[in-house]
Amino acid sequence: MAEKDKLSIVLFSGEMDKALAAFMLATTGASMGMEVKIFFTFWGLNVIKRNEGSIRSRGLMRKMLNIINRGGSKRLKISKFHMFGLGTWMIKRLMKDINMLSVEEFIKLSHEMGVKLIPCSTSCGLMGVDQDAFRPEVEPLAGAAYFLAEASTSKVSLFI
Amino acid sequence: MAEKDKLSIVLFSGEMDKALAAFMLATTGASMGMEVKIFFTFWGLNVIKRNEGSIRSRGLMRKMLNIINRGGSKRLKISKFHMFGLGTWMIKRLMKDINMLSVEEFIKLSHEMGVKLIPCSTSCGLMGVDQDAFRPEVEPLAGAAYFLAEASTSKVSLFI
Amino acid sequence: MAEKDKLSIVLFSGEMDKALAAFMLATTGASMGMEVKIFFTFWGLNVIKRNEGSIRSRGLMRKMLNIINRGGSKRLKISKFHMFGLGTWMIKRLMKDINMLSVEEFIKLSHEMGVKLIPCSTSCGLMGVDQDAFRPEVEPLAGAAYFLAEASTSKVSLFI
Repeated sequence: MAEKDKLSIVLFSGEMDKALAAFMLATTGASMGMEVKIFFTFWGLNVIKRNEGSIRSRGLMRKMLNIINRGGSKRLKISKFHMFGLGTWMIKRLMKDINMLSVEEFIKLSHEMGVKLIPCSTSCGLMGVDQDAFRPEVEPLAGAAYFLAEASTSKVSLFI
Repeated sequence: MAEKDKLSIVLFSGEMDKALAAFMLATTGASMGMEVKIFFTFWGLNVIKRNEGSIRSRGLMRKMLNIINRGGSKRLKISKFHMFGLGTWMIKRLMKDINMLSVEEFIKLSHEMGVKLIPCSTSCGLMGVDQDAFRPEVEPLAGAAYFLAEASTSKVSLFI
Repeated sequence: MAEKDKLSIVLFSGEMDKALAAFMLATTGASMGMEVKIFFTFWGLNVIKRNEGSIRSRGLMRKMLNIINRGGSKRLKISKFHMFGLGTWMIKRLMKDINMLSVEEFIKLSHEMGVKLIPCSTSCGLMGVDQDAFRPEVEPLAGAAYFLAEASTSKVSLFI
């Protein structure tokens, strides 16, 4: 029967270090032949927002939120020692030094390897953004039921 | 034999956004016919503490802790952009705007749908609280061994 | 066939409370006869660094990082209410009061119970540390592929 092994990840966090952990696992899984899906929810949506242009959203409060919480793979911060950007800059330098991919590069590689990048529809509703807020590599929105159905048939499910 | 699919969640965090993620998954799982349990541990205990009255606890230090760390579904803060309450207030407004349930409502709905809300006994010992600190919807305390036994027979287990 | 049940944990966080949760689950799992592995990644590496002496690392930036981010089981802070050390001190007092093990003691007990403590090789590369930075209880470094292979055959996998 040899069904393909599946790996399902929820990325709730919008921090650079947690995004790196998610993509490291996702691309490793894909290279091992696993079928990999990442569900981006809440702050995690920031990871897959477009880097360019402004993000359209409905209503004044959501417009404000999407300015404060702009997102985009190139704007993510580390969860500790951000230190007004110094810590994040330092970690990025160290990553380059060992030839680790940036989040931007990981997104592209994941997509090429067939990893599905899926935004959570409820979170999108809450934040007032739609498909247009996201990069072209991103799949159509899906809900929690879709995630649970996937996770139920996955060998590994993780909440990051 | 068509055993019921199970979903087991540890909620370690006491933040509003993570609690919402946990209840969103829990209620979705229940609506799909899954048997769902949430184990509240450490800061997560705050989510299911009573909103009213003071929390009794043993010893001066635990009394202090339970004042600083009062808890209750209506006192939870978001993990980012709390901004002295402004960010949390804003997210609550946005939630209402799209008819998303509050944590308070999610707890009641989960309970009605048969989701089991279980406080971790070791965390309760540490924080010096007992069953009396919790809402009526909450099950008796249980330990890590109970969680692992449940998780071992669950299709999906998540640590939030 | 009665394969041994397996529990695989990623510990990404270097905070005392999350480390306690990981070790509580790990030792409970081991006492139930499960085969337990903890993969320490990113800030989680701090948990298993040696407490004594300085940590050698390559290059000026990594040396700086390993001073700021020194680590060691005895230097971990709680994720909330650290309050310049007061909160962390208080939680440690409360732990002692109920005879809960410290992270230091949990590491030793886990090791004695056969729990494998495994540092993530990519994180070590990033942080510029090698096996020498870790305590004697720690296994050789391993990568994400090893974790996924383990998790795929585990009853329970958690990301903490």
